[in-house]
Amino acid sequence: MRNTMIAQEPSLARAQVSLGDPEISYPLWPPITTGCPKTSNDDVQYPLEIDYDYGALDLAIFEQAPLPGLDRWAPLLPPLLDGLSIGEGGTPLVASPRLADLSDFDGELYVKDESQNPTWSHKDRLNLCTVSAASRSGATGIVVASSGNHGASAAAYAARAGLPCIVLVSATSPRNIISFVRGYGAAAIAVPSAARWPLMRQLQERLGFQPVSNVTTSHTGHPFGPEGYKTVAYEVYAQLGRRVPAAVFVPTGYAEILYGVWKGFDEMRRLGVTGHVPRIVACEPASRGALALAIETSRPVASVPPNPTDAYAIGSTINGYRGVVAVQRSNGAALRVSDDDMRRAQADMGRTGIWNELSSAAGLAGFRNALADGETFDGPVVCVSTSSGFKDIATGTHTAPEVSGEWDEVVAALRDTYGIRV
Amino acid sequence: MRNTMIAQEPSLARAQVSLGDPEISYPLWPPITTGCPKTSNDDVQYPLEIDYDYGALDLAIFEQAPLPGLDRWAPLLPPLLDGLSIGEGGTPLVASPRLADLSDFDGELYVKDESQNPTWSHKDRLNLCTVSAASRSGATGIVVASSGNHGASAAAYAARAGLPCIVLVSATSPRNIISFVRGYGAAAIAVPSAARWPLMRQLQERLGFQPVSNVTTSHTGHPFGPEGYKTVAYEVYAQLGRRVPAAVFVPTGYAEILYGVWKGFDEMRRLGVTGHVPRIVACEPASRGALALAIETSRPVASVPPNPTDAYAIGSTINGYRGVVAVQRSNGAALRVSDDDMRRAQADMGRTGIWNELSSAAGLAGFRNALADGETFDGPVVCVSTSSGFKDIATGTHTAPEVSGEWDEVVAALRDTYGIRV
Repeated sequence: MRNTMIAQEPSLARAQVSLGDPEISYPLWPPITTGCPKTSNDDVQYPLEIDYDYGALDLAIFEQAPLPGLDRWAPLLPPLLDGLSIGEGGTPLVASPRLADLSDFDGELYVKDESQNPTWSHKDRLNLCTVSAASRSGATGIVVASSGNHGASAAAYAARAGLPCIVLVSATSPRNIISFVRGYGAAAIAVPSAARWPLMRQLQERLGFQPVSNVTTSHTGHPFGPEGYKTVAYEVYAQLGRRVPAAVFVPTGYAEILYGVWKGFDEMRRLGVTGHVPRIVACEPASRGALALAIETSRPVASVPPNPTDAYAIGSTINGYRGVVAVQRSNGAALRVSDDDMRRAQADMGRTGIWNELSSAAGLAGFRNALADGETFDGPVVCVSTSSGFKDIATGTHTAPEVSGEWDEVVAALRDTYGIRV
Repeated sequence: MRNTMIAQEPSLARAQVSLGDPEISYPLWPPITTGCPKTSNDDVQYPLEIDYDYGALDLAIFEQAPLPGLDRWAPLLPPLLDGLSIGEGGTPLVASPRLADLSDFDGELYVKDESQNPTWSHKDRLNLCTVSAASRSGATGIVVASSGNHGASAAAYAARAGLPCIVLVSATSPRNIISFVRGYGAAAIAVPSAARWPLMRQLQERLGFQPVSNVTTSHTGHPFGPEGYKTVAYEVYAQLGRRVPAAVFVPTGYAEILYGVWKGFDEMRRLGVTGHVPRIVACEPASRGALALAIETSRPVASVPPNPTDAYAIGSTINGYRGVVAVQRSNGAALRVSDDDMRRAQADMGRTGIWNELSSAAGLAGFRNALADGETFDGPVVCVSTSSGFKDIATGTHTAPEVSGEWDEVVAALRDTYGIRV
């Protein structure tokens, strides 16, 4: 049973490195949560990533079964807190043979279902790393600004680490999300968006809390977080029977998971485990598309107006530089998908047994758009599904027709409400 | 990578066998959804289970890694529909070192987190089997009566199988659940409880739909369903490093999962893989407790009044005979846990990073009560957590205090709403 009992090896992490200039590095501790001090300026802030002693890695790590519990990848992650894992990762790669209008695609299509994580989104991979970092660097608590998955996931890991957690939400956050955050004993407070960052700074300076979400104008986030997303790549490689997909389509807000997936595949390539990386494709709401604009205009960072979208989990109005790196270095793309594209993908994925929040369906929507544009794929395609339909803005607003149980009434309800003729 | 690529072996299932008299068996097809015809009477109906050609089993099946995708256990399951799996099972066994008031317990305590399934509850293990059975026996659709997890899970698998699905809910079902069911394209209809079974029968007789929930007075359910729950036992055995726990505490309504967990361990014992079975402990809402009453009064089936409980997922007023078998043959117990016990367990499990619906916390509540009663356990203890907090009746009713972001206001909100003094 070697696969399930693999010992937690020590982390090979050795430094924080600037994405603004890979020659610039910083000690591993403490985590720098405000971007690279040397390369950032008022307009553009550059994230940091973690470097490892790759030469000391036992490559047998890539031969293990892709089970839950990210501590099995400990050598390639920042130092984790012992016992913090709640079974994150090891999510299924689900074959999707039953999707409509893909009849011109004869390849393999898979959905990486991140809703099968401890708090039912991909964010658990990140927060295992960020909350470990906070605890190991002596933080007295966790603060996070989020109206969705990130806040609840941070709350779960903070609770397990024994740290208090404050989640700054907005007054319009879905009520399900408030219950979700409070379920882990965290304190949810609704503050105007302009007050979030000043308050996070105060909680950091006055109380010693560590922010695990972004506090800079262009997104940099916590440097240890995106490392957790590398494990998506390690798992997909194992789940495909040690193959690299042709492309990975990723719902994209600030591009932390996009970057992590790319980095994981790039590590395997650099280590000689694989021969190439997949094309990494960002899928943003069409009404926003900050990363797409940055890439089109060859800028590290671009801003867009806060035009309406129901895909609130990925509705960023400014991109993080990580997305530019991942797309360019993988010969990928940054696609815009409309809310209607996402709604159709959401409904169709429901017919394959996977119920997404709207944002989570952006990957499949982007893949379809790419196919419609004549793109071809020489190998398996993976769409990342980030989170469950329970987080959707429309959830809890549906009703069921009430009938007495008389046959004619049932037949009428099926026809009128659902268009089912029996 | 043998563990992840194990071929789907054919099922060794060979007959339906009566729990009322194990000498009585029926052909494997068609599924008998109304209990054993020969042993049942108006007062008590006996379920059927599946028998296998155990002698033909390759015991190496118990050496594989406990990954998601139940088709890896195909030889010991009823025949599955090819491609129906959406990665059910393989859920983490989470160590729970941080629970309050267990200081007098120095053993190992684990939570089997079934919320990390495709529709975020244990029911996916059952519906993989029932929907496969319906499709393979020629059903034209699926009908299920459920106000919670079972309906949504059946809807997901029906959608993937390409079968229409009708979910009979009640007018008081949580709205989240209605959105959930509709997310898979199923038709939710609210009918009075007295009309459910007649309507299910009509859908069966007039349209050829197959019921995947119970249609008898004392619970019998679909004979193929509880077989899926055996995989919980197979996985726990692997996850404990090939050990058998001392006891498994299970939230209990109609005892389908209780029975499945017992049967899985009992199969391993009969096959010589293990030496004994764990004590199987049913945990029912104290205001109901039909199984506890049946066992106390040495009856196969008992009824209780519909006294109030918020644990709607396990609020049965009559037991299924399966629970009697599992508890008696494992030297287990049937415990009553109050809503307050469950609320405390729910809150405390939130502090370990696991957010349950109220019913789902019954296992831990029962374990605590057993400890308080002086029970001792010679080995690891497993509490099954069945489902996520998103299904809780209180979810969506919480709010967050709104503040401007001024420090004094934030301090007051933390103190007044959350009792946090900073």
